[in-house]
Amino acid sequence: MINNLPPNTVERLSLYRRVLLNYPYEENPFIHSHRLAHLLKINPAHVRRDLMLISFTGDIHKGYNIKKLIREIGEAIDCRYVQKVAFVGIGDMGRAVAEYFNNVNSKLKVVATFRINNEPATQFLDVKCYNIAKMNEVLKKEKVEIAVLAVPQSFANEIAKAIVNAGVKGILNFTSVYLKVPKSIHVENFDMIAKMEKLAYFTNKDFCPAG
Amino acid sequence: MINNLPPNTVERLSLYRRVLLNYPYEENPFIHSHRLAHLLKINPAHVRRDLMLISFTGDIHKGYNIKKLIREIGEAIDCRYVQKVAFVGIGDMGRAVAEYFNNVNSKLKVVATFRINNEPATQFLDVKCYNIAKMNEVLKKEKVEIAVLAVPQSFANEIAKAIVNAGVKGILNFTSVYLKVPKSIHVENFDMIAKMEKLAYFTNKDFCPAG
Repeated sequence: MINNLPPNTVERLSLYRRVLLNYPYEENPFIHSHRLAHLLKINPAHVRRDLMLISFTGDIHKGYNIKKLIREIGEAIDCRYVQKVAFVGIGDMGRAVAEYFNNVNSKLKVVATFRINNEPATQFLDVKCYNIAKMNEVLKKEKVEIAVLAVPQSFANEIAKAIVNAGVKGILNFTSVYLKVPKSIHVENFDMIAKMEKLAYFTNKDFCPAG
Repeated sequence: MINNLPPNTVERLSLYRRVLLNYPYEENPFIHSHRLAHLLKINPAHVRRDLMLISFTGDIHKGYNIKKLIREIGEAIDCRYVQKVAFVGIGDMGRAVAEYFNNVNSKLKVVATFRINNEPATQFLDVKCYNIAKMNEVLKKEKVEIAVLAVPQSFANEIAKAIVNAGVKGILNFTSVYLKVPKSIHVENFDMIAKMEKLAYFTNKDFCPAG
């Protein structure tokens, strides 16, 4: 792992890896920064700077070796041990993510989902879905470090507090609520409503594109 | 609606409104840009620039009038008519969002969710959950403009194509797949896996914070 990478670089490195894993690298083992940037609709200068930060260099004519790059990104951002993840609310999404991580990134493992209604317990892959009453017990027993929070607004802070008390260090917050947690807890806000309102702005019939 | 606002400004205006709606403005009817910026952990210069773009000015001593600002943000970014939204996959999330929009932003209305498995049909608030086999028919009948796509990777492009064929203009893409859709379709990528890997990087025990 390379320490002190900028947050946006870490996020983009994760994106590069995902795009490259879907890229036909058996036929084209090399890729240029501008091609990779184009696939992600970002600036090629970002790609070059991010890869410089992990000391990855390409061939000036052929570009970057894709297989090597995938491996080096893993070396740079993946944890050396397996970090456990739980989903609180939003069971369906937990399943889709569990599927990806179980196949690709073996350093993140979804170990539990929790539902806040009273539907019967279910299981998907290896992931059990528990009632939220069991949350404290399961998070502690499994030593979960990361939780995804997707519960109704009115419960958000109460449940976030319980998650932190159970030892979780990072929260991916899908709610629209600003979470009041200690500074040592890393929160990533993933704001669906702002994205929807942005989409509405650019798709509505009154909108006239520039130019 | 104000045309040609930058995409990031639209997204931030949506965030300002949400924070301000939760702010105790009955007691404190005014807010300064630095306070609003602090609540969102962003740069106060962004707040000032964004509000300048919608020609909103505050009182140099008291700050911005919150109730007025909420209204002006609506004037700037909300559509004049109601845009309809559907969720494909991820039924639980559709419910949480439906709840927010039905209470706050009357210009976005979640009208349907679609499931890709064979669970029985359900209903939440006014929102029916259909089997995906009904998607084309329902999207057309309801004149849905915005769809949220959260299906397994292997179906993503096939379902996106069907969504576009049914007349949808904007897609909020929760899958990790790059969608191949016509340029006229506005796609917002909402990348859960990149966020999770970022969170894992900053929360893992090997990580030493800078300084």
